[in-house]
Amino acid sequence: MTTTHDTRRKPISRGGSPVVPSKGPRRGARVGEVRWDAGSFWGSRIRINAQATFDHCIAWMDRLGWLENFDRVARGETTTDRPGWQFSDSEIYKLVEGIVWELARRPDPLLEHRYESLVARIAAAQDEDGYLCTAFGHPGLPERYTDMSMGHELYNMGHLLQAGVARLRTAGDDALTEVVLRAADHICREFADGARETLCGHPEIEVALAELGRATGEARYVEQARLFVARRGYGTLPVRPLLAADYFQDDVPVREAAALRGHAVRALYLSAGAADVAVETEDAELLDTLQRQWVRTVERRTYITGGMGSRHQDEGFGDDWELPPDRAYCETCAGVASVMFAWRLYLATGQARHIDLIERTLYNVVATAQAPDGRAFFYANPLQQREAPEDAVSEHVNMRAEGGVRAPWFDVSCCPTNVARTLASLETYASAVKGDVVSLLLYGAGDISIEVTGATLGLRVDTAYPHDGAIRVTVTEAPASAVTVRLRIPQWAADAAGAGPGEARHTVGPGWWDVRRTFVRGDRITLDLPLQPRFSWPDPRVDAMRGTVAVERGPLVLCVEGVDVPGDDRLERLLVDTGTAPDSYADGAVVRALVLDEPAVPEGRVPFSASLAPSAQGGEHRLVPLIPYHRWASRQPSAMRVFLPTVSTPLGAPDAG
Amino acid sequence: MTTTHDTRRKPISRGGSPVVPSKGPRRGARVGEVRWDAGSFWGSRIRINAQATFDHCIAWMDRLGWLENFDRVARGETTTDRPGWQFSDSEIYKLVEGIVWELARRPDPLLEHRYESLVARIAAAQDEDGYLCTAFGHPGLPERYTDMSMGHELYNMGHLLQAGVARLRTAGDDALTEVVLRAADHICREFADGARETLCGHPEIEVALAELGRATGEARYVEQARLFVARRGYGTLPVRPLLAADYFQDDVPVREAAALRGHAVRALYLSAGAADVAVETEDAELLDTLQRQWVRTVERRTYITGGMGSRHQDEGFGDDWELPPDRAYCETCAGVASVMFAWRLYLATGQARHIDLIERTLYNVVATAQAPDGRAFFYANPLQQREAPEDAVSEHVNMRAEGGVRAPWFDVSCCPTNVARTLASLETYASAVKGDVVSLLLYGAGDISIEVTGATLGLRVDTAYPHDGAIRVTVTEAPASAVTVRLRIPQWAADAAGAGPGEARHTVGPGWWDVRRTFVRGDRITLDLPLQPRFSWPDPRVDAMRGTVAVERGPLVLCVEGVDVPGDDRLERLLVDTGTAPDSYADGAVVRALVLDEPAVPEGRVPFSASLAPSAQGGEHRLVPLIPYHRWASRQPSAMRVFLPTVSTPLGAPDAG
Repeated sequence: MTTTHDTRRKPISRGGSPVVPSKGPRRGARVGEVRWDAGSFWGSRIRINAQATFDHCIAWMDRLGWLENFDRVARGETTTDRPGWQFSDSEIYKLVEGIVWELARRPDPLLEHRYESLVARIAAAQDEDGYLCTAFGHPGLPERYTDMSMGHELYNMGHLLQAGVARLRTAGDDALTEVVLRAADHICREFADGARETLCGHPEIEVALAELGRATGEARYVEQARLFVARRGYGTLPVRPLLAADYFQDDVPVREAAALRGHAVRALYLSAGAADVAVETEDAELLDTLQRQWVRTVERRTYITGGMGSRHQDEGFGDDWELPPDRAYCETCAGVASVMFAWRLYLATGQARHIDLIERTLYNVVATAQAPDGRAFFYANPLQQREAPEDAVSEHVNMRAEGGVRAPWFDVSCCPTNVARTLASLETYASAVKGDVVSLLLYGAGDISIEVTGATLGLRVDTAYPHDGAIRVTVTEAPASAVTVRLRIPQWAADAAGAGPGEARHTVGPGWWDVRRTFVRGDRITLDLPLQPRFSWPDPRVDAMRGTVAVERGPLVLCVEGVDVPGDDRLERLLVDTGTAPDSYADGAVVRALVLDEPAVPEGRVPFSASLAPSAQGGEHRLVPLIPYHRWASRQPSAMRVFLPTVSTPLGAPDAG
Repeated sequence: MTTTHDTRRKPISRGGSPVVPSKGPRRGARVGEVRWDAGSFWGSRIRINAQATFDHCIAWMDRLGWLENFDRVARGETTTDRPGWQFSDSEIYKLVEGIVWELARRPDPLLEHRYESLVARIAAAQDEDGYLCTAFGHPGLPERYTDMSMGHELYNMGHLLQAGVARLRTAGDDALTEVVLRAADHICREFADGARETLCGHPEIEVALAELGRATGEARYVEQARLFVARRGYGTLPVRPLLAADYFQDDVPVREAAALRGHAVRALYLSAGAADVAVETEDAELLDTLQRQWVRTVERRTYITGGMGSRHQDEGFGDDWELPPDRAYCETCAGVASVMFAWRLYLATGQARHIDLIERTLYNVVATAQAPDGRAFFYANPLQQREAPEDAVSEHVNMRAEGGVRAPWFDVSCCPTNVARTLASLETYASAVKGDVVSLLLYGAGDISIEVTGATLGLRVDTAYPHDGAIRVTVTEAPASAVTVRLRIPQWAADAAGAGPGEARHTVGPGWWDVRRTFVRGDRITLDLPLQPRFSWPDPRVDAMRGTVAVERGPLVLCVEGVDVPGDDRLERLLVDTGTAPDSYADGAVVRALVLDEPAVPEGRVPFSASLAPSAQGGEHRLVPLIPYHRWASRQPSAMRVFLPTVSTPLGAPDAG
């Protein structure tokens, strides 16, 4: 294909995965190197994603006119009544990205046709100079770049670039490449130093330009990403009523911040882009700063689910230790963005803790968001729902990103397409290669055929993880020379045991467990991760969780649903007896609990919520089942709790002594 | 004065107070019937309000162009770049209302001139047909009534009516009356059944029209208020992106709701207006419903401070028991609105609990909002601040209504003028008359000279309440026949004692204590309210307060400030020993506490906030002082807590048994 733009394009390398650093020794798996079984935990979700979610998203975007926005621009028929938010273009791009990953996993002529048709409609809406946005810069719409704080133009084009990079890396140069390079060149011209020295209110272009630079070998794209990162934090963006500079991370320069703050998705996309820039420019100081910010954020501003962003207000991070279970916002997109950031830190540093967080987030945020049929989603992922919502699943657009019921679509509908592109590319996060070391990062039944030291290592993984902790790895193809198979032992797996080929079973991890040898076909590595349910205690500084405990089982956070504890408000009166360890029960657990009688609080006090000390209350001892949090609200709308008050909690009664 | 509008106006009665029901036996004090000493708790705040706050507000509204908006309309020079939100007119009206009450308390030629000048500018902006709003309906601005959900036109005019009613009731007919009646007549024409059958997204016109009907004797104003209340709850208002119908209370009709919900100020203004309608139309069923909603809301959705509206999102009520101390929004205006609603229920029913809530709200929300110099305000009133804010008091407009520092003005600046009008009229809430019963509702040093059974009862009240519990009431003027002096004994005053003239001291209350006789000058009633600090335990269903206790002293909620517990984060590690009762200390208290050493939580866990059980921690026993919550952040920006973890809290440690 011949291009007409001004880029001296270099040969395209097919990296095959979302993040392909040009510097550093480590790479993630390429699409196809890890193939999970269709019946496995993630394999089934990826299948549903391909079979149902893509069509579902396209149907909604068609119905709402978001797709036709591109045709209107192409036809020159834009008007002031454009449907959709200013960032609706990005939903199409994220969906295209998901389709591209899926096509690389499993060619499908019908899906390929869908892809080409979407790209044709997108391409037709591109301006002569490369600008592409259906919400600005055309008749009836505001002028280009007149609202850098909230306009989302570069955010939209960033997602376009990410879709194009995915295609370049899996299928090579095509019509989308042309669109993407023209858009990127436009941005580099318009936002160079000396031109518009500003930035986009919603980070995303940084990570996109960095990856496009990697995919094309064009350093100027990385340089533009570096410029955008470096410009941030100096109050350049116009502050809007009720939106302060920290909302946009424009309050403190990236390399001076102590923790992530403001709008969570913005903060995490920015951090991911900054990590890419740090790696490509070999800026160790910036990378260290980002590591420190990550540690502090995970320590003090992250839920047990991996959910980030506790505040509904601003969809933002709260203060340290501000982690209310009930009003936990934990936007699904923030979970996706957290995986993006942690994955880049892992590739740069090789630390197991980044994958630990990725696993926690995938099982407890991403898996929670997707309904079993792939046609409804959670946007917010609270850890407590006091009352069963009245509504069943709605057939309408959900105006609010909350409510305890998965919704088919949202007014701001960033999450469904973000889940779609994440699931379609998820297998590339399951393994990584550095030199002659192949790391197994995420466990699932399936086949691995991965390039290492110029040869191929084939592995068959048999496991029912996370429902069962037994993992059996059989070598199906072996390189001639010695390689290391490095297995991740999660932080919670204090009693994991394993055996390499011919070895006696021994304790391993947590962290990494290396099995090195010249493998032969049929060699077997066994790993047993302990999945006994366990109590997890909140940090004492988390005020909103004081006197409660959570139950986890392997990587799964568990919860109690009201539907399993009949009675109109009994989740409010359930106290866990932590003197007895939780037992396994199906894929969840069962705990001993005291279900209190109606609280014996004096009537008529004003305000009731600050009463005198209640007298001792009677109650009923019973066993209470917990299910994986990711399945909550799957049977029916229900009250739900992750953090459960414990019997030892004084419940407001005065101390004995 | 001759009026030209179409009202057949009846003679004006000077009611002298904000709420004057035409039905029902009870009336509140008129301006001048209660006069608090300038050195008393409220007297000093009323003085500061008059001496500093009025000028302060006018200066800001001048500087920001909100006042000039009226001149622009008058000059026909409106343009699209109008400064201020669509509701900025209402700030001028609330300030005028405050000035009117103050002028009635204490005539002042300079303030009178200010009043006349403001009224002249307002009057000049009124359209021929009575419409008055500077944000709609003029060149460059949107058309009238094109945004009923968020346009606030009737809200603005509602506050205009309230200012006019205040003037009518304290000084009689003047230029403002003319403006107000023309506006009210315009609204009755435009929003009659058969005309625009809709309502305003922000209630306020209901309470205003009802009161104007009472003040003028014109039943059609009350009828229009009734129509607005009756129309609400049927989804008439266009839903806006991210704003659902419950935000506007347009989801459920007033008489079918179970509790207050949605935007707190909207819900409370609506309830106040509905209570007025219920009283005027003798609708006992509606009044009962409102009572039940009030009880449920106070029981389950109200903070110990009286603060209402726990959510920053939507400035709204949360679910039952959703009362986080840290993210408590508790908007100051919601406190004012709660006083409005409770006062109407008291006048209708005579129950002490409504005044108990009013007292709680005044001392802990309204008094908290006002800075000692009357030139800075809190908008949000959280019950916990984790870190001392970095900023000292800003000289700039505060874009966000939060932050732990009182601000001189806000982008949305509803609270300063609402505090101003409340303080200026506050003495009218201190006493009430029904038949031959004079109720003393709020205690403060001062003089009462109140009309009862056609005569005058004069009382001198000597007290340092709430700093001291001794209240001495001396009769200074006595009616010839027997009357009852009814004293409110607050709910918390379980051991109050008192004595009527010549009586032995005996236990009284809580509730009402009646002293009936034919008083003579010099008669003395003594009342001693116990002000020993006390622990107050949160209801066990308030998850966010589990394992904590608050300390109250009389009507004052107390708090610990970080500045009194040196160490960078020691408020996070402070545990109260509730085995020892709190002691009085200055006007606050002192408690025994254990200040823990740095938490012994293992390092490096991911996420840290769900750690394994921490080992036992050492700490230092010490005495910790508490100050009245209303004084927090007065010395310097500081961390602060109202609800304090107790030593008996396991702090996440496993149960012993």
